[in-house]
Amino acid sequence: MSEPYVHGYDPRESGRLLDQAGALVHLLHSDTSYPPRSKVLEAGCGVGAQTIPLARNNPGARIVSIDISADSIAQARARVEAVGITNVQFRQADIFALPFEPESFDHIFVCFVLEHLQRPSEALAVLKGLLRAGGTITVIEGDHGSAFFHPDSSAAREAISCLVELQRMAGGNAMIGRQLYPLLFDAGFEAVRVSPRMVYVDSSRPDLVDGFTRKTFTAMVEGIREAAIKAGLTEATALDAGIRALYRTAEADGVFCYTFFKAVGTKAPGA
Amino acid sequence: MSEPYVHGYDPRESGRLLDQAGALVHLLHSDTSYPPRSKVLEAGCGVGAQTIPLARNNPGARIVSIDISADSIAQARARVEAVGITNVQFRQADIFALPFEPESFDHIFVCFVLEHLQRPSEALAVLKGLLRAGGTITVIEGDHGSAFFHPDSSAAREAISCLVELQRMAGGNAMIGRQLYPLLFDAGFEAVRVSPRMVYVDSSRPDLVDGFTRKTFTAMVEGIREAAIKAGLTEATALDAGIRALYRTAEADGVFCYTFFKAVGTKAPGA
Repeated sequence: MSEPYVHGYDPRESGRLLDQAGALVHLLHSDTSYPPRSKVLEAGCGVGAQTIPLARNNPGARIVSIDISADSIAQARARVEAVGITNVQFRQADIFALPFEPESFDHIFVCFVLEHLQRPSEALAVLKGLLRAGGTITVIEGDHGSAFFHPDSSAAREAISCLVELQRMAGGNAMIGRQLYPLLFDAGFEAVRVSPRMVYVDSSRPDLVDGFTRKTFTAMVEGIREAAIKAGLTEATALDAGIRALYRTAEADGVFCYTFFKAVGTKAPGA
Repeated sequence: MSEPYVHGYDPRESGRLLDQAGALVHLLHSDTSYPPRSKVLEAGCGVGAQTIPLARNNPGARIVSIDISADSIAQARARVEAVGITNVQFRQADIFALPFEPESFDHIFVCFVLEHLQRPSEALAVLKGLLRAGGTITVIEGDHGSAFFHPDSSAAREAISCLVELQRMAGGNAMIGRQLYPLLFDAGFEAVRVSPRMVYVDSSRPDLVDGFTRKTFTAMVEGIREAAIKAGLTEATALDAGIRALYRTAEADGVFCYTFFKAVGTKAPGA
């Protein structure tokens, strides 16, 4: 069954996820291309932030998007309908108990989901069972341990560690991005190729300064402020200093780096 | 004047730098292209590891390569001659007292040099004076704070910190890569564009596992073992555990990530 979702489900959080999708669509999604009439499973669609670029980039594909949260599914459906996308079906379902026939999908797409699961390897095994031989799985995950910045700040690094620890306490792994190769390899996928996708932000890229450094990453750290203090991971003064230091990296001489990882693996015949 | 060079000048170190150049040439250098007859200054050529790809990619350019170490210059000259390159002149010189006329170069190339200088901003100002209006400067630097890996290991992170600290004690900055944008911007270069170049290594890329994770990065940490212990930064047991943990990332399920930064800026007329 599901684990608590570290980012929560409040409206500000949904806004953050959509900002993130807006700034990062090209970097993460532009090379995910499926042939027309492919049947694609999006496992863990959340509020639909990744569903929209997936469906737009693949208008001929038939996409089935599932999420464990009925409320997220409702939001995702509303958003997808609002922009006129018609090739996505939504179903509320648990990734560990999916209501589909074996080998019934041509391709599977999983974005920002494994990081929240206690048993990501088991999830990959389940998904592999739903994939036809010759089909591909695409997995995209971030890695909070990949963040570095100028000016460097131990307070900022500590604040990020609180986020990582809180996600660990909830059963997840905020540094799972770097592990995609061994995870997919161990799950028996073949021809696994991982490519890092670094978001590099300096003041020559004001859209990313605002959309990523401030409104995605730092907002995410700010978003766990009370939970981290309540869990005894830090004190308000220290965490606030870290958050200020992260905002500092968005000033004119600041730099912020964060890496997402994208992995693609193939299911071999008989696998 | 010069600062102590943290990597030293022994033959094993020269070998390491050449391994590194072999594995990384395409990633770092393939997009450095100067028009025929350009006059290019390579400031800080060391033993010539970067000089060879620079000269090969730009056979029509006239390259002048300087280094403060006469011994390094001798090695670089021998290597360049051994591979039949004829468009490079070498001179022994201090980057802060270069024997050239103002605005006498079309382009300037600086690779793995600023990290070792106490006053990188001043070096950039000196180099800017040697560049004609409309010419470009290209700067490539690593960033040891960008390294992360699987399995994660606090011992490995501590060992890397020793390298960073040792370089700081020698007057350098092993995390300068992330600072290239503000450094070039503050030096008055225009249209500064920085691109990160991540070396991503998993076991599907055995050449990089051996050539980068083992023989470049981990060898570099091993190379400062005695100096770090002598400086009181760590103890042998702890450092050896860190080195073992770095080698561990080169095993079948391991992953290693490191980011270089490449910056290009232009000298505006009248700047």
